[in-house]
Amino acid sequence: MADPQSSTFQGDLQDQKVAGYQSVLGVTHTQIATLPGFCTQSGHQFDQVDVAYQTLGALSPARDNAILVCHGLSGTAHVAGTDPQTGRPGWWDYHVGPGKAIDTDKFFVIGTNTLGGCNGTTGPSSIDPRTGKPYGMSFPPITVRDMATAQAKLMDHLGIEKLFAVVGASMGGMQALTWATEMPERVRVCVPIATCTAHNAMQIAFNEIGRRAIITDPNWNSGNYSENSLPAHGLAVARMVGHVTYLSEVAMAKKFGRRRQPIAEDPDQFSVESYLHHQGEAFVKRFDPNSYLYLTRAIDAFDLFQNAAPEEVLRRVHSRFLVVSFSSDWLYPPVQSRELVRLLKRSGIAATYINLEADYGHDSFLIHNPPFANVLKHFLAGEYAPNHEPRLAHLAPA
Amino acid sequence: MADPQSSTFQGDLQDQKVAGYQSVLGVTHTQIATLPGFCTQSGHQFDQVDVAYQTLGALSPARDNAILVCHGLSGTAHVAGTDPQTGRPGWWDYHVGPGKAIDTDKFFVIGTNTLGGCNGTTGPSSIDPRTGKPYGMSFPPITVRDMATAQAKLMDHLGIEKLFAVVGASMGGMQALTWATEMPERVRVCVPIATCTAHNAMQIAFNEIGRRAIITDPNWNSGNYSENSLPAHGLAVARMVGHVTYLSEVAMAKKFGRRRQPIAEDPDQFSVESYLHHQGEAFVKRFDPNSYLYLTRAIDAFDLFQNAAPEEVLRRVHSRFLVVSFSSDWLYPPVQSRELVRLLKRSGIAATYINLEADYGHDSFLIHNPPFANVLKHFLAGEYAPNHEPRLAHLAPA
Repeated sequence: MADPQSSTFQGDLQDQKVAGYQSVLGVTHTQIATLPGFCTQSGHQFDQVDVAYQTLGALSPARDNAILVCHGLSGTAHVAGTDPQTGRPGWWDYHVGPGKAIDTDKFFVIGTNTLGGCNGTTGPSSIDPRTGKPYGMSFPPITVRDMATAQAKLMDHLGIEKLFAVVGASMGGMQALTWATEMPERVRVCVPIATCTAHNAMQIAFNEIGRRAIITDPNWNSGNYSENSLPAHGLAVARMVGHVTYLSEVAMAKKFGRRRQPIAEDPDQFSVESYLHHQGEAFVKRFDPNSYLYLTRAIDAFDLFQNAAPEEVLRRVHSRFLVVSFSSDWLYPPVQSRELVRLLKRSGIAATYINLEADYGHDSFLIHNPPFANVLKHFLAGEYAPNHEPRLAHLAPA
Repeated sequence: MADPQSSTFQGDLQDQKVAGYQSVLGVTHTQIATLPGFCTQSGHQFDQVDVAYQTLGALSPARDNAILVCHGLSGTAHVAGTDPQTGRPGWWDYHVGPGKAIDTDKFFVIGTNTLGGCNGTTGPSSIDPRTGKPYGMSFPPITVRDMATAQAKLMDHLGIEKLFAVVGASMGGMQALTWATEMPERVRVCVPIATCTAHNAMQIAFNEIGRRAIITDPNWNSGNYSENSLPAHGLAVARMVGHVTYLSEVAMAKKFGRRRQPIAEDPDQFSVESYLHHQGEAFVKRFDPNSYLYLTRAIDAFDLFQNAAPEEVLRRVHSRFLVVSFSSDWLYPPVQSRELVRLLKRSGIAATYINLEADYGHDSFLIHNPPFANVLKHFLAGEYAPNHEPRLAHLAPA
């Protein structure tokens, strides 16, 4: 599976145009809810917060089939379906839709843009109501807990008291873990994917390189840039670093190797260089540099067991877990998921763990990945209606 | 070994001050030889080239004990001993000196600064004799082969027809491989360490991130910067990327973990961030940004078997080999060294290979590393006087 050279390989939908790909969901719309504010962990009182969100499928009369999908660092509320403006599919369209891993025929799926982001939810590029100008770096420091709190406000707004599941990968996985530990009575099933309970030094280091590239770009100007003078170079370098860490060495070797992609200015350019340039430039068009700083700070600071021992934190958990990691993910290596599972099991929490063989690195969760889809689909179906669906029989071998 | 937390751990001498460390060699001097020029592979005719070098130990009457030591990307001719200006030990003082792995009581050791570098040898920051100004980006593109050619000119100058050994790690290992294949009659023993025969896509990608950071720094100014307006931010980011790739995840976890190092501007700063900032800033003081571009371009382009099949290239080799890799080196992973050894063996070349267990990543060759020193020492001693010294008996278990 996931062979970047095979004709069936389909890269992630967020950053690439996958030829001929069309969402079966048709056009889906992202809305913005203006919600009651709250006090951040850093002590800032938001009078109100905007949360961009998308819903797919129908809420059951018992209101027991809602799945919150939490995106990674650069995702949006647009989880699946076709965006009416851009014509692009949602970032997880491979895995969310009728009959898919997260089955919109069965579940009511909610995608939200994270607090601190830049795609509709309140973040550094939003207007500060107190000044009438964008927050910029006067935006308060936020935490993963604050992100989950904003999501919870949206659930209140939608009348969803208890989620059937919170599913999230990477930064989204941290949000899922936060839901399960901080709002345990509101989550039946927790699915953290390719994530960890706290960044290690290397994860922090890569983020800091990106931040440094941004803040040393003269256009950054302490966060007070305009659309015409973005710190585009810094943000592009940050994204290039990100993309290398999202892929695996094997995937890069297969996808690019030492192939050349000559251009006038550089007749010896390697394909991998051209790929990274493109990714950097594309990101600048869709992401706010200050958001990049705030979100990476939040995930670097995230530490599920910072204030209490694991057994104490996990004692309050009610959810059952599916934990997924990918063999070639060196940014969020399987050892971090295994450690989480070890702690869950030690606390007597029902946890299914699978480390999927996949050569596409951290991005394995973003691409067309049938074994992953299969695991997710049957776990959710089995947990939702344990008596009606065979639960483990359909799990494909990894 | 190599436990970054233990009190006996000694980091690399090039970028850190190791408390209390003193070279037993005393003061050593770097000289500059102005040598006959040559035509680069790209077709540029140098009328002459300067090569900075250092010699340690004495050349034997038979002129058969010379070892050329080739540095990595950012090294200098100052291999060992104390620099009279800075008071700092040479970058490989752990391993070069009396009784050490490269024993200056026995061998005549030559360190040179690479062509394209910025520490005495002709490079982009040198004055172009045709214009009277620094070359900058008008410096011709250079190759690893050109670097070896400049070194060969120095050997001619020193009257050394045949080297006993060429030893090099990382970029230096590519130079060693080039000597063995392009000037086979001049090398008895070849010791490539933590290196490869061609960069893979990931190695190119990390270099390109560094280059991009430099050339998008407005101060770079197409390579025409002055000492007062260096593209310091870009070069610092490039170095930060480098440092993360030189370490291993395990070493970073041990060395920094999630420890904090608060400063006024950032009370939540992690130690690893402070380390990277420091490394970036220190590098700017000692390295030329244009050199960084030229050298990384050269090693990305290096491909030992680009123009002919391995068996054809290796048919001309006369040297015997010691190939060393380090278990935790993910920048130049052991698999690349194993592949080299496989090809050497297939061509009937005598090659000893050792993959040393070391948790310090690519930098394992730069630090105090007794198992590595032991392997190197006994291999060289055994090859130099095969009848007088036990050859394998002293090899410590890795």
